Amino acid sequence: MTNNIRKRLAATAGVVTLGLGLTVNAVSAENLDEVMARRGLSQQDLLAAAKTYTPSGGRDEFIVFSSGGQSGQVIVYGVPSMRILKYVSAFTPEPWQGFGFDEESKAILESAKVDGREIQWGDTHHPAITETDGDLDGEWLFINDKSAPRIAVISLHDFETQQIVVNPIMQSEHGGAFVTPNSEYVIEAAQYPGVLGRGFAPLSEFNEKFRGAVTYWKFDREAGRIQPGQSFSLELPPYSQDLSDAGKGVSEGWSFTNSFCAERYVGGIELGRPPFEAGCSQADTDFLHVINWRKAEEVYKAGKVTMINDHPVIMMDTAIAEGLVYLIAEPKSPHGVDVSPNGEYIIVGGKLDTHGSVYSFSKIQAAIEAGKFAGTDPYGLPIIAMEDAIHVQVPLGLGPLHTQYDSRECNVFTSLYVDSQVVRWDYCEGKVLDKISIHYNIGHLVAMEGEGVNPKGKYLISLNKLAIDRFNPVGPLHPQNHQLIDISGDKMELLYDMPIPLGEPHYATAIAAEKLKPLVRYRYGTNSRTGGKHEGAVRPGQERIERDGTHVKVYMTAIRSHFTPEIVEVNEGDTVEFIVTNSERAEDETHGFAVSTYNVNLSLEPGKTATAKIVADQAGVFSFYCTEFCSALHLEMTGFLVVKPEGYQEASAEISEGTSYTQADYDKQYQTNLDTQAVIDSVVAYITGRNFKDFPEVVSLVEDAVDQLNFAAEARAKAEETAQAGDWQNATLWAGQWWQYQVKAADIGLRAKTFLDEHGAVVVE
Amino acid sequence: MTNNIRKRLAATAGVVTLGLGLTVNAVSAENLDEVMARRGLSQQDLLAAAKTYTPSGGRDEFIVFSSGGQSGQVIVYGVPSMRILKYVSAFTPEPWQGFGFDEESKAILESAKVDGREIQWGDTHHPAITETDGDLDGEWLFINDKSAPRIAVISLHDFETQQIVVNPIMQSEHGGAFVTPNSEYVIEAAQYPGVLGRGFAPLSEFNEKFRGAVTYWKFDREAGRIQPGQSFSLELPPYSQDLSDAGKGVSEGWSFTNSFCAERYVGGIELGRPPFEAGCSQADTDFLHVINWRKAEEVYKAGKVTMINDHPVIMMDTAIAEGLVYLIAEPKSPHGVDVSPNGEYIIVGGKLDTHGSVYSFSKIQAAIEAGKFAGTDPYGLPIIAMEDAIHVQVPLGLGPLHTQYDSRECNVFTSLYVDSQVVRWDYCEGKVLDKISIHYNIGHLVAMEGEGVNPKGKYLISLNKLAIDRFNPVGPLHPQNHQLIDISGDKMELLYDMPIPLGEPHYATAIAAEKLKPLVRYRYGTNSRTGGKHEGAVRPGQERIERDGTHVKVYMTAIRSHFTPEIVEVNEGDTVEFIVTNSERAEDETHGFAVSTYNVNLSLEPGKTATAKIVADQAGVFSFYCTEFCSALHLEMTGFLVVKPEGYQEASAEISEGTSYTQADYDKQYQTNLDTQAVIDSVVAYITGRNFKDFPEVVSLVEDAVDQLNFAAEARAKAEETAQAGDWQNATLWAGQWWQYQVKAADIGLRAKTFLDEHGAVVVE
Repeated sequence: MTNNIRKRLAATAGVVTLGLGLTVNAVSAENLDEVMARRGLSQQDLLAAAKTYTPSGGRDEFIVFSSGGQSGQVIVYGVPSMRILKYVSAFTPEPWQGFGFDEESKAILESAKVDGREIQWGDTHHPAITETDGDLDGEWLFINDKSAPRIAVISLHDFETQQIVVNPIMQSEHGGAFVTPNSEYVIEAAQYPGVLGRGFAPLSEFNEKFRGAVTYWKFDREAGRIQPGQSFSLELPPYSQDLSDAGKGVSEGWSFTNSFCAERYVGGIELGRPPFEAGCSQADTDFLHVINWRKAEEVYKAGKVTMINDHPVIMMDTAIAEGLVYLIAEPKSPHGVDVSPNGEYIIVGGKLDTHGSVYSFSKIQAAIEAGKFAGTDPYGLPIIAMEDAIHVQVPLGLGPLHTQYDSRECNVFTSLYVDSQVVRWDYCEGKVLDKISIHYNIGHLVAMEGEGVNPKGKYLISLNKLAIDRFNPVGPLHPQNHQLIDISGDKMELLYDMPIPLGEPHYATAIAAEKLKPLVRYRYGTNSRTGGKHEGAVRPGQERIERDGTHVKVYMTAIRSHFTPEIVEVNEGDTVEFIVTNSERAEDETHGFAVSTYNVNLSLEPGKTATAKIVADQAGVFSFYCTEFCSALHLEMTGFLVVKPEGYQEASAEISEGTSYTQADYDKQYQTNLDTQAVIDSVVAYITGRNFKDFPEVVSLVEDAVDQLNFAAEARAKAEETAQAGDWQNATLWAGQWWQYQVKAADIGLRAKTFLDEHGAVVVE
Repeated sequence: MTNNIRKRLAATAGVVTLGLGLTVNAVSAENLDEVMARRGLSQQDLLAAAKTYTPSGGRDEFIVFSSGGQSGQVIVYGVPSMRILKYVSAFTPEPWQGFGFDEESKAILESAKVDGREIQWGDTHHPAITETDGDLDGEWLFINDKSAPRIAVISLHDFETQQIVVNPIMQSEHGGAFVTPNSEYVIEAAQYPGVLGRGFAPLSEFNEKFRGAVTYWKFDREAGRIQPGQSFSLELPPYSQDLSDAGKGVSEGWSFTNSFCAERYVGGIELGRPPFEAGCSQADTDFLHVINWRKAEEVYKAGKVTMINDHPVIMMDTAIAEGLVYLIAEPKSPHGVDVSPNGEYIIVGGKLDTHGSVYSFSKIQAAIEAGKFAGTDPYGLPIIAMEDAIHVQVPLGLGPLHTQYDSRECNVFTSLYVDSQVVRWDYCEGKVLDKISIHYNIGHLVAMEGEGVNPKGKYLISLNKLAIDRFNPVGPLHPQNHQLIDISGDKMELLYDMPIPLGEPHYATAIAAEKLKPLVRYRYGTNSRTGGKHEGAVRPGQERIERDGTHVKVYMTAIRSHFTPEIVEVNEGDTVEFIVTNSERAEDETHGFAVSTYNVNLSLEPGKTATAKIVADQAGVFSFYCTEFCSALHLEMTGFLVVKPEGYQEASAEISEGTSYTQADYDKQYQTNLDTQAVIDSVVAYITGRNFKDFPEVVSLVEDAVDQLNFAAEARAKAEETAQAGDWQNATLWAGQWWQYQVKAADIGLRAKTFLDEHGAVVVE
């Protein structure tokens, strides 16, 4: 029956068009008007569809990196198509990516323990892309964990988490991650106050012993790593610090952190006291913290710090003496603090106020230089009077939260939580320009590169909360709703509703797609979590099993469609490490690796090496297999881990054959292969007879096909060698393997041929 | 500054249109032609956009439940919008849903251990929806784990996993889950052979001691649970059993399971032997298993079984004697086996063959009744000759995998893996009707209700593997590509490319959206994992902390925007259980619950009760907080877990106030509240002055607003009571809380008002 493939290949290679019979009950296709009528679409809907629909193979103009909220992941999606491209594991183990399942990523999670506790999730809030001169550069992504004070570092080359740092002094945090204009530092501000260093003090000593803080994590761009040894923090009052932003342009060297619950209320509803929400929202204002981080860096380097958990902290008395921190009143329970592209303006929204408050950096500087303060807070920090710092306050609506900048000068967008609206306004002139209603309560919003020095305008995304009636219902836990808004005209226009199927995003950041330069494949034998060469990587032919006492290391390769070795024998109780290298070059040939009934799964993209480690604590025979549908023989990409019971002695090591083959079987297979090769040759001729070198995709495919044909030649040599020895069993099977490589080559060849046909390749001499 | 909200509310209530200033640089909007030109869209693209684009609030016609592959989850998305609505955790812990983080779901994962091993992932492959008379009914969903032989049971009322059963005898499985026409049984077939019961035998005894199997799990529809005590298995030969399907109509009572590697090859590339892929694909045919499950059920009930791991297994000799299992040759390395709507035809594709092979159930029955067999397999199972069972074999193309049925009679769709195509063909007449190229290697495909007795046609989805060039690149691990195809006309038309951002789906099933009846909220105090009342649920007012030795139970409620209690004091080393009930009625008021630096997160949809359990092994003060953005004061929804060091004695239990309030503060807040109430009254008048009762969504909002106003009244009473006593501190804060409830009511009221405006509500008398 294998002849059928041969015949079919021949038909394809000959470019014979099949004469397909028409059905009797022919149905004519709908036209556009009919479709619109059937689906109830308006002209406006059709325009929105045209603005967002992206045909097969089309590319998005912008890429959004959104926090995944409590999922502990980062969500990557395209604009304007609003299609989610990837969930990247940041803090939560995720088996598809192998994160938390291979030993390499487990090492990262090990370093992410807090005070010795393993934490298998994160409450991600604010992603930030590295910047060069204040411009988003698309090299690295940072994301914070509110629940445990941590920052993850994600490479935007391979979209993998490569580092997690634990804040040494905070109890929780919220205001991370924000980067300085050249990514010198990643800013992380505390949320709920605690004893610095996570010590104990009773709540009765809250005002005296509890503190907030802001940490400046030094980022080493060359290494792609945060350097905890070069990072420092500032002690702050026990207000709940919230979001931050780094100054840029005229305000470069400064950073801004807002806060809520400057009332320092400690709750107690169970005692009959009003709850936190009342006590933390009673005062009309909270405090914006204005921090000179460049000067703080000097103070830290001068050693004027207190070490807490081996981490240098500039205490408040030093900060006051050195002039590092200033406070300014800001409207009640603010959430966003956002610096304008030129660095002169800082916009704050107060959730329980109705204004956008625009602070002027030059006014702030003037007050500081003049030593003009309205007093000090209870901890002695100087307070700048609001009227000395404000450029303008603009009534925007109910519940202003967060602001993003437009490409149009002086234009800005602010989310209105209670009104469920986005407002466009002019922060120079202080006037509202436009409003649009969204569905429903909006948290953050993101404009394209809306936090950089060069905002791109065009699109805005409103990050709306639980979408009760926007989509088909899927139970009591609703998706969130990210609404795409066209901001290219004067009137904002709603284009698209995108459900978020997993997690509750808080903040997102968007970058021009052209700035991203992701890897296509790894250098051979890469440990993706370090970016370096994996010490356990092996080339085909070097595979081996090494035993050291009860510790067994299996140096393995994976290629479609087999692992080497296939049979691994160990003893009950052994620790077994499978160190697997994907030896493919084709970029879509990811393999997986799992051992049945064990808690391991690897994602092995081409070139990657990763380790599955298990304790073989149960006698038995366990299948390992490829968990990615990699080829037609994917299900056959398997092997056995034989775990021998303690004291077991095998009677016979001879493998019994389920099926026996004869010379006739060999001859039949051999002839099939010769026929198949003739067909492959004709496909090759078709491809090489066209300008395939003008298509990089096809050049890759051809390289891969050549690999497969070389493997076929090796298998053929083995077949002929064993046939020579009269071993018809192995000769037939090797001939079969030769044919398998031919099929793989044919698969690739047909894809290349189709690509050439679809892309207008031409015949060459 | 709180007066601002009051003024703004007044403006809104008065329905005053803001006079928005126009910008000077007015930009005119693009028209359709301009948009198409800018985005390079063809007329065909626009038609596809119109067929898929779904405006805000629109509904999808079908809902797809897709396996999430190695992510261990189920992916839910809508058709034709191709928007992913939810990832449902099946086997892998996921914090957003609380799965594996609350004690209730941990109990499920505890029961999902295999031989005592904790497994934190699953390799999900084949979802199946419950059926009634062979028609998909949308009540329950089953999904298998290939890696560890398990089946998860997901409720389609709340989209949560409620049960996981572990196969007691298999080493791995692939061919699950498939249901019988009235969901009496869930069929699970083994994949790689093993010693039944997961025992040990050397590979040299593979043919003698290794076995395949198929398990029939009894499903109790009333209980919504698989009943392991009423389930049974059949021992099968050590072929690698693959997919299954249940007979229906004329073939009801039978089931069909195919297989590969009937060669029973055991590999050994490391010994110089050809790899599994060669040895398992050498023969031209494998075996289709035809099983009389109705009769097997009788044999099981008659006790003709062998107990393995306390599980009843019908051994092969019994199966032969009772006439339960028949084999038929099927084309090389098949993947799908799919029964036609009327039950007469069974279609098999052989990955390394080029045909769709259509078996006739009546021919099979005739052969069985006539006792006409071609012989037996090595284990004595009777083999029916292929020619006695085949209705027709149709040359389809390279790598036919899997088949789905159309609404048109005799029409069927088959995926062609190597050709990267879908073929529509007529399985009655045996002719190819149409082909469409997809991108790229396709595994399964799903037509709307394409496996039920009443296929719906209209759409087909091609589940394509790693999409190297369809989307913006996101690193070496590519998304999969689900392509939506319009099958309503004679010519298949590609409509949409959807990236899968997490996991590699294998099979998917699609159901008409109208058949699903998801819950909106839970009955108060529900344990969602049992569906019953949670014994730890409390009503507001019943909250308490109970200590039993070192075990502390905190019976807590959550409502926007506070927990009760807020301060929880325990001793270092205590075990603390937070049993939290969400006491909200509004359907979008999900709350979360996390304790900083601990590995717990709850997802508390309205009415749900769930438990976060920690060991307080570190002295300190840990914030707990709400992890869902639930209200404007979400960040203030927090509390403290005070873990006192061993031997600690507090000097003073007095809570120190960060801010003090006077009678003047109270009076100011009181007046603000009275003013705010007047505004709320006007919003209420606006709503009640319209036909709001005609809008169920608004009726819900009004109920919720009334709740908030009742809470406001309670807070007002407390404010007035404490003011009476001259306690201006608490009087002011309670007055603040009263105002907070007013703001919550206003938030809801404004949403209701907007809804009425947008939906054309009219003034009533």
